Amino acid sequence: MFQVDHIGIAVKSLAAAKEIYQKLGLDMSPEETVEQEEVRVVMVPVGETRLELLEPTADDSVIARFLAKRGEGLHHLCLRVPDLTATVEALKRDGVRLVSDEIKIGAGGHRYIFIHAASAGGVLLELVEEH
Amino acid sequence: MFQVDHIGIAVKSLAAAKEIYQKLGLDMSPEETVEQEEVRVVMVPVGETRLELLEPTADDSVIARFLAKRGEGLHHLCLRVPDLTATVEALKRDGVRLVSDEIKIGAGGHRYIFIHAASAGGVLLELVEEH
Repeated sequence: MFQVDHIGIAVKSLAAAKEIYQKLGLDMSPEETVEQEEVRVVMVPVGETRLELLEPTADDSVIARFLAKRGEGLHHLCLRVPDLTATVEALKRDGVRLVSDEIKIGAGGHRYIFIHAASAGGVLLELVEEH
Repeated sequence: MFQVDHIGIAVKSLAAAKEIYQKLGLDMSPEETVEQEEVRVVMVPVGETRLELLEPTADDSVIARFLAKRGEGLHHLCLRVPDLTATVEALKRDGVRLVSDEIKIGAGGHRYIFIHAASAGGVLLELVEEH
């Protein structure tokens, strides 16, 4: 079954960004650093999905460059798909532009790939596999 | 209970934007015009939430102006809250900036309000009530 796994939000300051979700009465995870992506992350569970607040830890990181260019806000959308390998093969056959050629392994061992925004109506679209 | 009601995505062409979701194997609603918002809309259900693809029907509409300034992509995030009236009163007491002073009535009679992106870490945050 398909699901929205998370919605990535680029922020300058986790402390400031967390405020509105606290005011709304939502719980959130402790802050955590993901070295591989050069971000500090807070997860805000909302129903079956999560908001992923992303603060850069390095000036030349992907999120820092996004903030410099576009400012704070919605950054990417991550969909959970039933079979990531089959989906990626089908997308490649269809000529969809992917950010990397191969499925990557993330923190905690989950498999993921990004579809280029140019192939997804301007949305940076991440795919992960159900687990 | 909180839920992500929908994720709004601004697109130049619904026909083009629908392609990636069709390729992923997702179903979607027929195209529909919402006169009040000057958009044509396609809903893509994903688990308990929905992607809302928004194509402008007028050059000076909110979505057309967003596209001119920022290009296609993620536009807003809509959260479903248990009690919208109580939530809005609490946000006002907390000094949160709202796009309108009062809760509005949308197509189909649902009640909604937008939190200004300046009060929500750069995210245009819509709130609707559970129903």
